[in-house]
Amino acid sequence: MHDEAPALLVREIGSFFVGGERVRLQGLPARARISTSHGPVHPIDPNGEIMAGQMYVQYVRLVSPRAPVPLLLWHGGGMTGVNWETTPDGRPGWQMFFLRAGFDVFVSDAVERGRASWAPYPQVYAEAPYFRTAKEAWEETFRFGPAGSWHTDPALRRPHAGLRFPTAAFDAFLNQFAPRWGCNDVLTQRAYNALLGRMPDGAIVLTHSQGGNFGLTAAVACPDRVRAVISLEPSGAPDPAEHDPRLVAGVPHLFIWGDYLDQHSFWVSSRPASERWRDALRDAGCDVTWIELPERGIRGNTHALMADDNSDDIAGMVLEWMQARGLIGAGQPVERGAAASA
Amino acid sequence: MHDEAPALLVREIGSFFVGGERVRLQGLPARARISTSHGPVHPIDPNGEIMAGQMYVQYVRLVSPRAPVPLLLWHGGGMTGVNWETTPDGRPGWQMFFLRAGFDVFVSDAVERGRASWAPYPQVYAEAPYFRTAKEAWEETFRFGPAGSWHTDPALRRPHAGLRFPTAAFDAFLNQFAPRWGCNDVLTQRAYNALLGRMPDGAIVLTHSQGGNFGLTAAVACPDRVRAVISLEPSGAPDPAEHDPRLVAGVPHLFIWGDYLDQHSFWVSSRPASERWRDALRDAGCDVTWIELPERGIRGNTHALMADDNSDDIAGMVLEWMQARGLIGAGQPVERGAAASA
Repeated sequence: MHDEAPALLVREIGSFFVGGERVRLQGLPARARISTSHGPVHPIDPNGEIMAGQMYVQYVRLVSPRAPVPLLLWHGGGMTGVNWETTPDGRPGWQMFFLRAGFDVFVSDAVERGRASWAPYPQVYAEAPYFRTAKEAWEETFRFGPAGSWHTDPALRRPHAGLRFPTAAFDAFLNQFAPRWGCNDVLTQRAYNALLGRMPDGAIVLTHSQGGNFGLTAAVACPDRVRAVISLEPSGAPDPAEHDPRLVAGVPHLFIWGDYLDQHSFWVSSRPASERWRDALRDAGCDVTWIELPERGIRGNTHALMADDNSDDIAGMVLEWMQARGLIGAGQPVERGAAASA
Repeated sequence: MHDEAPALLVREIGSFFVGGERVRLQGLPARARISTSHGPVHPIDPNGEIMAGQMYVQYVRLVSPRAPVPLLLWHGGGMTGVNWETTPDGRPGWQMFFLRAGFDVFVSDAVERGRASWAPYPQVYAEAPYFRTAKEAWEETFRFGPAGSWHTDPALRRPHAGLRFPTAAFDAFLNQFAPRWGCNDVLTQRAYNALLGRMPDGAIVLTHSQGGNFGLTAAVACPDRVRAVISLEPSGAPDPAEHDPRLVAGVPHLFIWGDYLDQHSFWVSSRPASERWRDALRDAGCDVTWIELPERGIRGNTHALMADDNSDDIAGMVLEWMQARGLIGAGQPVERGAAASA
């Protein structure tokens, strides 16, 4: 907890759900449950209607936001909105960064995870979930070290040279992982599009990883609601043969990529979709910024850009990009002035 | 979203995890996953270490809290911390109420749910989860109507006469439900006790339903860290034959109960445990307040006391009880003054 930073003047903290519909479970055998330690046994009929497909959205609204539209933070696969909060090593995360910069910030937990809850399989979801292992996270998705470098003993793990993820906090990072399914893309896209439907004045969409494809696709589905799309290492992107990039020709796009991408097969096979969509956007006349951090001399960034030790610098890069496009005023945030006088 | 209310001067919003340990999955067959729409197929080895047993805690810290210690909000079974946020019908919930009253507020998602994530069964958890049906919620746990009064068509549902839950928001309430297990009480209690271990100056614990037993038991486990226990309709309580109430003789306890309790078998069988613990606390000389709202002429309250249409009145009753015990100063909150001058 960090006491030295300027305060926020907050209008409201709250939450809501989008998407979701009642589905019926049937043909399941009766069960019985003890609901609390030493409690009585209660019969349970698991059949009936439950809610499925909803997405959770938590907002923090400022008294005097400097940005005219909110910033929506959409997490990656097997993750929740938590990865925008305090970093695993205890520093303020991007939620706080962009609140302090003057944005109303909306952090969601997509369908199937976190506070959005999940629905039973195989009755509602077609398959069983995947639980990300520490080894897979370390060696592949998050690119903390090369193949074979993970070890259960922290002292024996071998991170990439120059790695910017604070590996002493790796176990704390594991706490953020959530089971994921491979069958919920349509439901999730629908919920994200519905969220944009709740933004009459539009919003800026900032995504990570799996959230990238959802964000890029939502912009095509709701171009009048999306003022900009910022994609941190999207794991996928719309197919130009299926989606028309001209629909988002007026929406500025920013892509940011870290280091070690060519050393991990997941990324070697995943990135070309984003490159194709980038090229299609440019051909359509779109304002596209494509940043590969190593090309700017910034080495050592992992897939956890918002948790690496230079996460504030990268957030600052995003903020400058938005300021250059008039998405937020330049200068001193209103909140800092309010805090200073309080 | 409510713009007329006084603002909060917030020092930091953040989160952390407590509990949790790495567990090893083994002997599971290889799988393959498509991670994003139109993405490549990735091989997945589900074997390896994952995190299990962690609990998620989100805090909002004020610049100038009026209360000397934080307020911890612990949700009920099959729920997450969301039930302290915006009510299903869109009013500010108890998180905002107690922030505005001058508390630092910590909202947790207990083990197995929400942002705490969950672990696979039968490999880690012993059994499959329970998914609460709309009918069960309506007719039994939350006491919205008598047996047989639920209907899939909202127009044909028959709530109790005088019901204070806003039934037009019932589907929105279903969005808050999370799968629950019957096998995680020990892990969960351990995580709650660990949370209190993170509170060097102590805290006030305010619980709902299943959270009740955890809160009452945590006070016995960590009496030096708990300044007061407030239990909204606890579904269970410590057994005086197993736990010594004299350990919490100096900790004031408040219990609050709604209406219709004798009409629902879950509550007829669940409440005696709390009555026994109440009596044991009183015998030990503890300051115990036991409020049955109908005895005060307040009728129609359900098990969702923090979402009923008089939720602010009940929160106000809790606040007065705390003020009477010196747990927070009386008078105008600092935040209101700050907001007024901003």
